[in-house]
Amino acid sequence: MAITVVGSVAFDSIETPAGKRERCLGGAATYFSLAASYFTNVRVIAVVGEDFGKRQESVFQARGIDTRGIEHTAGKSFFWEGSYLDNLNEAKTHITDLNVFAAFEPKIPEPYRDSEFLFLANIDPVLQRRVREAMPEVRMVAGDTMNYWIKDHRPALLEVLKGLDVLLINDTEVRMLAGNSNLVQAARAVMEMGPKSLVVKHGEYGATLFHSGENSERTFRAPAMPLSEVVDPTGAGDSFAGGFFGYLASQPEITPAAYRRAMFYGSVMGSFAVERFGTERMQQLSREEIDQRFIKFRELTHLD
Amino acid sequence: MAITVVGSVAFDSIETPAGKRERCLGGAATYFSLAASYFTNVRVIAVVGEDFGKRQESVFQARGIDTRGIEHTAGKSFFWEGSYLDNLNEAKTHITDLNVFAAFEPKIPEPYRDSEFLFLANIDPVLQRRVREAMPEVRMVAGDTMNYWIKDHRPALLEVLKGLDVLLINDTEVRMLAGNSNLVQAARAVMEMGPKSLVVKHGEYGATLFHSGENSERTFRAPAMPLSEVVDPTGAGDSFAGGFFGYLASQPEITPAAYRRAMFYGSVMGSFAVERFGTERMQQLSREEIDQRFIKFRELTHLD
Repeated sequence: MAITVVGSVAFDSIETPAGKRERCLGGAATYFSLAASYFTNVRVIAVVGEDFGKRQESVFQARGIDTRGIEHTAGKSFFWEGSYLDNLNEAKTHITDLNVFAAFEPKIPEPYRDSEFLFLANIDPVLQRRVREAMPEVRMVAGDTMNYWIKDHRPALLEVLKGLDVLLINDTEVRMLAGNSNLVQAARAVMEMGPKSLVVKHGEYGATLFHSGENSERTFRAPAMPLSEVVDPTGAGDSFAGGFFGYLASQPEITPAAYRRAMFYGSVMGSFAVERFGTERMQQLSREEIDQRFIKFRELTHLD
Repeated sequence: MAITVVGSVAFDSIETPAGKRERCLGGAATYFSLAASYFTNVRVIAVVGEDFGKRQESVFQARGIDTRGIEHTAGKSFFWEGSYLDNLNEAKTHITDLNVFAAFEPKIPEPYRDSEFLFLANIDPVLQRRVREAMPEVRMVAGDTMNYWIKDHRPALLEVLKGLDVLLINDTEVRMLAGNSNLVQAARAVMEMGPKSLVVKHGEYGATLFHSGENSERTFRAPAMPLSEVVDPTGAGDSFAGGFFGYLASQPEITPAAYRRAMFYGSVMGSFAVERFGTERMQQLSREEIDQRFIKFRELTHLD
C-alpha cells in the first residue's frame, strides 16, 4: 500500500574520513523514499529550488517514486554541509541553508489522497501536523523529529505526537523528550504523549521497538550490522525509517511479527545506506541483496 | 567441568540513585564465581584480610564455591568506594585501597589443578600470566582487563593475550587496545594479538562476539535487557563473564551454537546483577529464574 512522505529534499556537502562529496542529493524525504521504494509505492511531498533538475528527479523516478508532490519554486534548494571527521556517530554541521524550505507550505496532490500510510519526516512540527490533518483517512502514521524541535518547539511537537502510531527517534532524543535518563522509563513516558509504538535508534548498536497497551511486553531489539567500514553515516536513520515503514506498508496485516521483521528491514537499509556517499547505495539495491542481508541479520542474532 | 578463577575479592561502598551501601561483599572474582556457580563448579584464588570472616565465606560456600584458594593474611581486604550518581554507565571512583591485594601472590591449591577452565579476572597482567603458566593443562582460558592495564602495562598485557582463548573487554577498551575507533577493525586487530574469540561488552546495548579464523563469519550480537530500574551497575561485567564462561564450561562441546547461548547466559546474569546492590541478587537466584530470563532474551531478539 502506498506511503506518502513529507520532508526535506536537499543537497548535501559531506566530508568523512573516507573522502568528500559536494552537493550530492540528500534530505530525509529522499533517503526515506529510496529505502521504502524497495517495499512499496512511495509518494513525496517536498519543495525544491531551481538547482533541482531532471538529473535529481530521475533518481526518484528510476525507483518508481511519485514526484508530483515535489514543488518547484524560484530560489535554491535546502543545502546542508557537514563533516564526520572526529566521530562517525555525530555530524558536525558547518552550514544549514534552508533556502526555499524556509517558506515550505506542503500541498497534497489529489492522487496522493488515497495513501494508506503517511510518514512525517523530520521537519517543523507545525507542518507535520498540517499534513497529518489534511490526510485524515490514512491508516497508519509514523514520524521522526530531532533535538531542535524537542527543545524549542515542544508544544507544537506534542500536538504531532498525539496523532502518531509510531515515533522513530534516537537515544538522546527520547531521553530529552521524556526528561528521563532510563531508556525504558523514557520510552513509556513518550508513548503516554501519544505514539502507540516507539522505535528508539541506538546508532551502531541497533534499535529498540517498544509498544504501549496490550503489546507492551513485546519489546524487540534489532542489532545494527557490525561494519568494518562506514563511508558516510548521512541518512542512515532516514533509510532505517524507509525500510521499517516501507516493509510495514507492504504487509497485509500489521502484526507484532510484522513489526519485528520491519525492525530488521530498517536495520538492513540503514546498514546499506552508510556503505557509500549520499544516496548512492540506496539508488542501486536489489530486493535480493536486501533479503540476503536480512538473513545475515538473522544469523547475527538468532541462537539457531 | 570446573572453572578456576583468579581475581579480587573485596569490600565495596557504593552509592547510586537508588541508595547507598557500605562495605558490601564485592570484587570481580566474587561476582564471577557467584554467576558461574549456577552452571558449573567454581574454585576461587584470591587474597583477603582479617575483615573477611565467616559471614563472607559463607556467601561462597552457600553456592558450593571452593574457597580453599582464598588466602587469609594480616591486614585489610581490597576496598573500593564509588558512585554512579550522574551516570549509571560509568562509576566515579572515590577510594581504591588495595590493602592486602597489593602484595597478592596467587597460589594454586593442589585440588584446583585438574580444572579444565581458567578465568583470569581483571588483575595485574603479570599475575594473570603467572597463574596461566602454572596451569598449563587447562583446556580453555578466558580473561578480562581494563583501561589502566591497557594504557600503562601494555607489554605485560600483550603476553597474557597470547595465551587467551577468549578476551572479554568493553567497547572503549577494545578501541583503546587496538588504537582503532571502528569496532570490527579493532576486534580483528585485538584477535591478532592472541585471543581466538573476543566478547566486546556494550553496557546497556548488549555485547558482540567475534571469532578469528574459520569461524570469523560467525559474529553474534546479544542484547542487554532493557531495564526500567538499575539499582547498582557494579559487577555487571563480571557477572556477564561468569554466566558466559560458566555456561561454556558446562557444555560437552564448545560449538559455535554453545558460544551463542553463552552470550545470552552472560547477558542474563548481567541483567540480574544490576537489580540489587552488590552481589545480593547473584546470591539468591535459581536456575529456573535464569532459564526464564533466557527465554525473555530470546523473545526480545528472535523474529518468531
